[in-house]
Amino acid sequence: MAYIEFNALSVYLGGSFSAKVFMPEMDKLQLDDAKHEKRYPVLWLLHGSGGTALDWLRTPVEQCAIDNGIFIIAPDVGHTLCTNMDYGAPYEKYMHDELQGIFRNTFPISDDIEFNWIGGVGTGAYGAAKMIIKHPDIFTRCLIFDGYLDMKKICDRALRDELTGIHHTKASLEAVFGDLNKFMGSEHDIFTLVSDAKSGKFYMTCSKDAENLEEYKVFAELLGDKVTFEIGNQKPEDYVLEETLPKAVNWICETTL
Amino acid sequence: MAYIEFNALSVYLGGSFSAKVFMPEMDKLQLDDAKHEKRYPVLWLLHGSGGTALDWLRTPVEQCAIDNGIFIIAPDVGHTLCTNMDYGAPYEKYMHDELQGIFRNTFPISDDIEFNWIGGVGTGAYGAAKMIIKHPDIFTRCLIFDGYLDMKKICDRALRDELTGIHHTKASLEAVFGDLNKFMGSEHDIFTLVSDAKSGKFYMTCSKDAENLEEYKVFAELLGDKVTFEIGNQKPEDYVLEETLPKAVNWICETTL
Amino acid sequence: MAYIEFNALSVYLGGSFSAKVFMPEMDKLQLDDAKHEKRYPVLWLLHGSGGTALDWLRTPVEQCAIDNGIFIIAPDVGHTLCTNMDYGAPYEKYMHDELQGIFRNTFPISDDIEFNWIGGVGTGAYGAAKMIIKHPDIFTRCLIFDGYLDMKKICDRALRDELTGIHHTKASLEAVFGDLNKFMGSEHDIFTLVSDAKSGKFYMTCSKDAENLEEYKVFAELLGDKVTFEIGNQKPEDYVLEETLPKAVNWICETTL
Amino acid sequence: MAYIEFNALSVYLGGSFSAKVFMPEMDKLQLDDAKHEKRYPVLWLLHGSGGTALDWLRTPVEQCAIDNGIFIIAPDVGHTLCTNMDYGAPYEKYMHDELQGIFRNTFPISDDIEFNWIGGVGTGAYGAAKMIIKHPDIFTRCLIFDGYLDMKKICDRALRDELTGIHHTKASLEAVFGDLNKFMGSEHDIFTLVSDAKSGKFYMTCSKDAENLEEYKVFAELLGDKVTFEIGNQKPEDYVLEETLPKAVNWICETTL
Repeated sequence: MAYIEFNALSVYLGGSFSAKVFMPEMDKLQLDDAKHEKRYPVLWLLHGSGGTALDWLRTPVEQCAIDNGIFIIAPDVGHTLCTNMDYGAPYEKYMHDELQGIFRNTFPISDDIEFNWIGGVGTGAYGAAKMIIKHPDIFTRCLIFDGYLDMKKICDRALRDELTGIHHTKASLEAVFGDLNKFMGSEHDIFTLVSDAKSGKFYMTCSKDAENLEEYKVFAELLGDKVTFEIGNQKPEDYVLEETLPKAVNWICETTL
Repeated sequence: MAYIEFNALSVYLGGSFSAKVFMPEMDKLQLDDAKHEKRYPVLWLLHGSGGTALDWLRTPVEQCAIDNGIFIIAPDVGHTLCTNMDYGAPYEKYMHDELQGIFRNTFPISDDIEFNWIGGVGTGAYGAAKMIIKHPDIFTRCLIFDGYLDMKKICDRALRDELTGIHHTKASLEAVFGDLNKFMGSEHDIFTLVSDAKSGKFYMTCSKDAENLEEYKVFAELLGDKVTFEIGNQKPEDYVLEETLPKAVNWICETTL
Repeated sequence: MAYIEFNALSVYLGGSFSAKVFMPEMDKLQLDDAKHEKRYPVLWLLHGSGGTALDWLRTPVEQCAIDNGIFIIAPDVGHTLCTNMDYGAPYEKYMHDELQGIFRNTFPISDDIEFNWIGGVGTGAYGAAKMIIKHPDIFTRCLIFDGYLDMKKICDRALRDELTGIHHTKASLEAVFGDLNKFMGSEHDIFTLVSDAKSGKFYMTCSKDAENLEEYKVFAELLGDKVTFEIGNQKPEDYVLEETLPKAVNWICETTL
Repeated sequence: MAYIEFNALSVYLGGSFSAKVFMPEMDKLQLDDAKHEKRYPVLWLLHGSGGTALDWLRTPVEQCAIDNGIFIIAPDVGHTLCTNMDYGAPYEKYMHDELQGIFRNTFPISDDIEFNWIGGVGTGAYGAAKMIIKHPDIFTRCLIFDGYLDMKKICDRALRDELTGIHHTKASLEAVFGDLNKFMGSEHDIFTLVSDAKSGKFYMTCSKDAENLEEYKVFAELLGDKVTFEIGNQKPEDYVLEETLPKAVNWICETTL
């Protein structure tokens, strides 16, 4: 077990933030590396709205870090949807500019984009996809677990005063995205942005009866040969990160290390 | 040392929240109370914007809980200013309706309002004052440490595009309060609300050279005989909760227990 | 998620101790219980030597607390083997006298022994079995997961200067048990003690190829009709608490609630 | 605030250990250091018996890290007295061989002994003094705060069946040191060892009425010109790390950086 709780100040967020860090044990940390100069690959993981980075502790995330000799860093993202909020903190900038710097200074993680990967579950799937599409300068692999990609559908529900399904209200979605009527085609709409994605490889996975299977299929089609899409045979309630997280991390490591 | 980190779900916040809990050691917990039926007074403490509840660990908060045989509960309040946000979570409702219930179910704290007190530092001073003024049904004592009370002044700075001084931008203040031009006299303006305050006793303290000394004096005048106001002789940079927190908690205990 | 990290002082241990607490969310906490008088059943869980209570976070322990409306409390037990150490802290006394009182004062847990249960994995299995056998006045159900019961076998390995297999050396075992030659038949030898066990029900589970299957069978035989023994069909490396913990907790709840 | 809770496995300890890490914020972390190659000085701090590394949070330890641009690492040392226990874990070896490697691999701390310092309070004062005296190959500065140095005096109390005064019993001291009659002159007796100390500089501080003032004076005399000894004018109950920790850290930084 090598598990770290990290708290620090962010200038962009105007305050403190927290993250959980999972890392290999010392035997993988190559203690014969006398000058301690090795830099490790790093997977950034985003939890879903309504949760916190603590949620990852219920998954085999630590074992994945150990087995593959990588760092896994899970920041708390709150309800920001990994977005430069219209009313609120510029979370996308923070992820892009600040978080990278803070962690590269603090831990022996690689700044080679080949070894910087991102993934997410629930609304974190949307956040991870958006980050790699808009920021191919810092991420080269993306893991999309069962969750939400089509935020336009969510915004439309809010506009119709329906439950959004994602621990967000109309007001809180407006704080994030601004005018919800203008969502489609905006810088937040990954179904539009994805057509410009020139690099990066994606691994998508969900259950065959997942609520959002159709949007996953559409998104996979838009990604074309950039994506490996695994549809699980299990029922949605049996879709668990216990199985899919290790497979997904293996996929990354096999295709990059 | 009896120190607890608490994480749970809030329906109002649409997700997880955290709090730190400080409590007396077992000798004060009256282990001869065979049925474990004793209920303890509780002080709710609010940190300032830009900080977290972790900040309280740097103060003698734990010793105050031990010395006085009380619970002290410090929730993370983020940048909500303890307010039902215009775009965002209804933090005031959560503090009023939900947090009380969750903690009363989980810990042996009193639901007698005589033994429910609130306090804050920085912008938490504003939050604490607002809570007791608007909710005299749940709090009877309020501790106001060096910080901010006059949010209209802050909003005006934001409207003039000046730095707000409180880890908030114009956009983030609008997410909290809505139209900043309409702040004065609104349900968020404690300088207006205070004239209706019928009950509750206040303990205010700041340095003689505090940045906000004038607004503290005005607010104290509005409180009239409901307030005990201590102006410290130290310089602002020497104003520390090491001294003022124990004095303030003593004041509460002397006037209620 | 309702997850608590608890730190307090123990007189018996001569210092601080930590525990993780998992509890039902507020809807199960019966917030309509206006006087907050309900007391919840509690399962005490012991981790194995070499680990900490953090290890439980990797299991569905939280979901078990939620699904069954119970508290689960996992103290850090270090390398004490839940024993009044010959050289060191009286951990058994602490578990029996002090921990119960501290937690009953702090959380709404039942002091009815019908609703106080204990379980363990690894060397925690030994600790849990010992506690219920020697202290039927405080526990009525015991969960024994894959692990170690026959400490005499371990002590004999140490006496032969072999690896013990349990993150203990000969010296550290002597600190716990005293003279290892005198272990058999001592107050630490649960294979002797078990014949006096008059009450309590046990649920034992391990893999069909478990290293210690034989000692589990012997122990189950000694327990007679007090035990429900489930031998899993999985390979040892696939034996995981993901499956067995929820089944075991269900067994308790079905037979007591 | 940059505050880290660290958990990892130790081979020497046969299990998990915890530490708290305090570090400078990002502006001091030189984010213009494009290759993230800077290595920071590090102060290792040892808490007293009966406490945990959490105790340091009540001191200005974080501010000291920020003000001086250094890492401060506070491991949990339990009741080991920083000693290779006679019955138990080889804590001195762990501090010397393993902890250094683990943290140098994980954080950007210097392996230059000029920038590796150690300090302690309570029984941690004894531990810190012992580490630098016996291991001048890894530490060059030592901070000794109010506490205990003369373990022979403590052992003699235990042999006379008196209270030891340090959260240790005769049995637990024997687990640490072995035969207490043989303590004097042993490898644990720093009053003997100190005469061989060839390098390292010490900063000692205690109150003018401290319980152990006399042993501090004797130890300071033995250290000769290697020590700076500050006797505070405050009463023992007013001796607080709030004042002395920053002064002591300043002393280190002024004499080394």
